[in-house]
Amino acid sequence: MLTKKEKIYEGKAKILYTTHDPATLIQYFKDDATAFNAKKKGTITNKGVLNNQMSSFIFQFLEKNGVKTHFKEKLSDREMAVRALKIFPVEVVIRNRVAGSLAKRLGLEEGRKLQQPILEFFYKSDPLDDPMMSETAPVALGWMTQKEVDHVKEQVWKINQLMTKFFDDRGIDLIDYKLEFGKDAQSNIFLADEISPDGCRLWEKGTGEKLDKDRFRRDLGKIEEAYEKVCKLICEGRP
Amino acid sequence: MLTKKEKIYEGKAKILYTTHDPATLIQYFKDDATAFNAKKKGTITNKGVLNNQMSSFIFQFLEKNGVKTHFKEKLSDREMAVRALKIFPVEVVIRNRVAGSLAKRLGLEEGRKLQQPILEFFYKSDPLDDPMMSETAPVALGWMTQKEVDHVKEQVWKINQLMTKFFDDRGIDLIDYKLEFGKDAQSNIFLADEISPDGCRLWEKGTGEKLDKDRFRRDLGKIEEAYEKVCKLICEGRP
Repeated sequence: MLTKKEKIYEGKAKILYTTHDPATLIQYFKDDATAFNAKKKGTITNKGVLNNQMSSFIFQFLEKNGVKTHFKEKLSDREMAVRALKIFPVEVVIRNRVAGSLAKRLGLEEGRKLQQPILEFFYKSDPLDDPMMSETAPVALGWMTQKEVDHVKEQVWKINQLMTKFFDDRGIDLIDYKLEFGKDAQSNIFLADEISPDGCRLWEKGTGEKLDKDRFRRDLGKIEEAYEKVCKLICEGRP
Repeated sequence: MLTKKEKIYEGKAKILYTTHDPATLIQYFKDDATAFNAKKKGTITNKGVLNNQMSSFIFQFLEKNGVKTHFKEKLSDREMAVRALKIFPVEVVIRNRVAGSLAKRLGLEEGRKLQQPILEFFYKSDPLDDPMMSETAPVALGWMTQKEVDHVKEQVWKINQLMTKFFDDRGIDLIDYKLEFGKDAQSNIFLADEISPDGCRLWEKGTGEKLDKDRFRRDLGKIEEAYEKVCKLICEGRP
């Protein structure tokens, strides 16, 4: 049985522990919620349980469709066994519709449709507020090889095709979301982190109701209900 | 003879006039200098004359090497005949070394060498402070076609090879610079705007002395002397 040994990382929403197997970590999901680079803090009751359940389901869906992810096994309500990876210091944001920081930055109307998805790279850095960078920067700065960037981009487009269809089938518009990747000791690249309403913008089709962390960011109320609704839609597989 | 008809654009450093020929504009170079999106304003004596001279020289150098530019002819001290283009609302920044906003944004040391150039896209918008965007954004937003973006990127890499060698031969490190492009009525794409110390970071090899608008931005003094020095190095062709 896999048990937690040492805490090696604590982030805003998750904790990572080593196990007796150096290739496997335990990812623990917290209820803590932060926004605006932790300037706003709070708790969303049961969020950790729901995000673990949703992420586990989506990682398995992606694996079945040929995407390599760090997911190994759901261990308990709040725990998931994942591959031990060296995470690239890069967040990839995929935008299928205009929303959030993109709307503000480029002065665009929220909800505007795009002629094709926008793919943005950000440097994972709390002290710098996760600044945007060019997709040429990780190679120029020696953080990734060109081959790694190309592979990640290829995976991102594939994941986006799978994910937009997955959510569309469940009555949800996948507006935008962020992905993180890492590599194992053999330099194989895997999708990492989590996939949940914490890092995705999910709008109910038809009503446009926000079913994601924007309810927390923007004080829209009914946060727990939104996460529960998404979890049900994801795991039961229909709108 | 080409004469100015109507002022159609006045920017921070240049004015554009129509002429009797609809395919030709006159680009007039001012001495006005601004920085930080016009929050800092001033005048650099003779800058317009020097920038017109330098830009004319560099555009001709690039044309000779197979790059299509909007340059047609130097008309006078401060005037250049250029092609009438529809300018893309995009600034492309090419960075051969870390400096300026990149150093600040990603928390990197100014002067750091890069394993390959960084190419960044910005949305030309004064009210929004020229925000950064992904290279996927111009197509997603319908501002450019994918073919146009690909062509511009191809030209940018070619121009950068020519320009780094050009400045290196003259004892100058080309640290970073911005380029703008536009298309004519037949959808041919041309390099536009100007190439001068207003939009390039130029460091003297060996000493590292800044020979560009950073002298104005950072109140380093001897601004006119720096522009004159660069103009001499560019046009006389040796350090």
